[in-house]
Amino acid sequence: MRWAEGFITADWGTTNRRAYLIDASGQRIDEFEDDKGILSVRKGGFGDAVAEIRERLGDLPLLLAGMVGSNRGWVEAPYVPCPADLADLARALIWAGEREAIIPGVSVVRNNRADVMRGEEVQILGAREAGLISPDSVVCHPGTHNKWIHLRMGKIHNFATVMTGELFGLLKDYSILSGILQAPVEPNAAFERGVRQALDSDFLPAQLFGVRASVLLEQLKQEDAASVVSGLLIGTDVRIGMSFPLAARVMILGRPELTRLYAVAVGLAGRDATVLDGEQCFLAGAKRIAELIDERG
Amino acid sequence: MRWAEGFITADWGTTNRRAYLIDASGQRIDEFEDDKGILSVRKGGFGDAVAEIRERLGDLPLLLAGMVGSNRGWVEAPYVPCPADLADLARALIWAGEREAIIPGVSVVRNNRADVMRGEEVQILGAREAGLISPDSVVCHPGTHNKWIHLRMGKIHNFATVMTGELFGLLKDYSILSGILQAPVEPNAAFERGVRQALDSDFLPAQLFGVRASVLLEQLKQEDAASVVSGLLIGTDVRIGMSFPLAARVMILGRPELTRLYAVAVGLAGRDATVLDGEQCFLAGAKRIAELIDERG
Repeated sequence: MRWAEGFITADWGTTNRRAYLIDASGQRIDEFEDDKGILSVRKGGFGDAVAEIRERLGDLPLLLAGMVGSNRGWVEAPYVPCPADLADLARALIWAGEREAIIPGVSVVRNNRADVMRGEEVQILGAREAGLISPDSVVCHPGTHNKWIHLRMGKIHNFATVMTGELFGLLKDYSILSGILQAPVEPNAAFERGVRQALDSDFLPAQLFGVRASVLLEQLKQEDAASVVSGLLIGTDVRIGMSFPLAARVMILGRPELTRLYAVAVGLAGRDATVLDGEQCFLAGAKRIAELIDERG
Repeated sequence: MRWAEGFITADWGTTNRRAYLIDASGQRIDEFEDDKGILSVRKGGFGDAVAEIRERLGDLPLLLAGMVGSNRGWVEAPYVPCPADLADLARALIWAGEREAIIPGVSVVRNNRADVMRGEEVQILGAREAGLISPDSVVCHPGTHNKWIHLRMGKIHNFATVMTGELFGLLKDYSILSGILQAPVEPNAAFERGVRQALDSDFLPAQLFGVRASVLLEQLKQEDAASVVSGLLIGTDVRIGMSFPLAARVMILGRPELTRLYAVAVGLAGRDATVLDGEQCFLAGAKRIAELIDERG
């Protein structure tokens, strides 16, 4: 069996999964996305969930990334410690079957700090593989948990996870601010005001309450509150990212509705931002791992 | 009618209320606490809720503080802008009836910042009235929303609200950290570790995820996670408070289970902390306002 003759790869996260069929020429020729994230798969149900992917895309080898390799997933793939590149990931693949490989996540323990990622590593190292980012660079990968990644000599050297998206969701759904946060977030003047406040001072848990007070005291229009709060959170996030080396130019990689907000915030921090397509990067990383599997036989 | 002959005062918050009977000698001779906060009172139901207080403590004038004066309360008492002392509050009382006075909250709008408080102002200015704090001082008032208050010449000059308690609750009840945050918080070594991390760097939304990663990578015992997260939040809170003038000695005022945590964090920040009894301060403030009502006739 040679993977280069065609394989399926999937980014299988907590709440959804996206699978791609790659043909012998390395082109993506089919794909689907659904909401069968790992939390929706019953215990012992991964065999069926995997069979369903093959029913839709073909009876081919399967390369899986993301939370499917976590302790709540199909088979646990222990984290590969930094520094790590695609060859390190390929060497540490966990085989759930003869034709089913799970890509491990990456961990870092340094200076009394610990962090983990699962799924983003394929995109980031794929961006490097595709020549879209230089071997020494800083990448921002927005999501429920934003990642700042320092790439050094082509390897993931260090990274930090910032709970920005999750904190926004908690505030919107459950907090005393909930009532004023239901408007859509836009990269408008209110968003920029929040970003600037967060870049100027590190008082996030006070600034958040200040948004409520500003609405109560008619210093801020209620419809702008969600954008200000998003700006405060993303501005704080970018301030954290700016502490990484090489952050003069930031490569931003992910879904457009988030990357456009981060691009504005990075710009307000006085840095250049380049936005990349996360899907393209993921496929570049997955194809390289498939090649490495063939090379190692 | 003279209030000095005896009155009832209540701190009536969002989720509970505490009422005290004060006799002609100024002594507290009866009290009760229940969970009839303003959110539990149906629209139009405040007459009955007030009658119930008098049934329990006597048919006397009633001085109310807290969220009962908010737009969700009995009658809205507009915020008094800083600087404000007890005389300012007494002048701005809102009369819900001939014998029912509601104490307004306090607001600040300064340097593009806005903030509000309702209830804490009586305790803080009561502490000053009782001679427990000097006319120029910094007070920390922990709660769901911690308040840092700068008192200047005996007046509330400026303040900031930090969402510490609420953020901890959101993380504990709804976040990806929920599973590791169920242990009780103690002012132990793990708590101090969190405080020190927060005092050293302003990376809260990253440090929070780091706690989860530290448990996953076995760098931190799961039973210590709640104390570390509380330490990170309270340490961040204290770092914000340290930006106030006069913070060499911090007066901490509130419930013992919170004031003991803040006292540890303030100490780790290299400042002196003095813990005061919030209830005693509240009663001192309410008695002074009752006197002012009598003086003004």
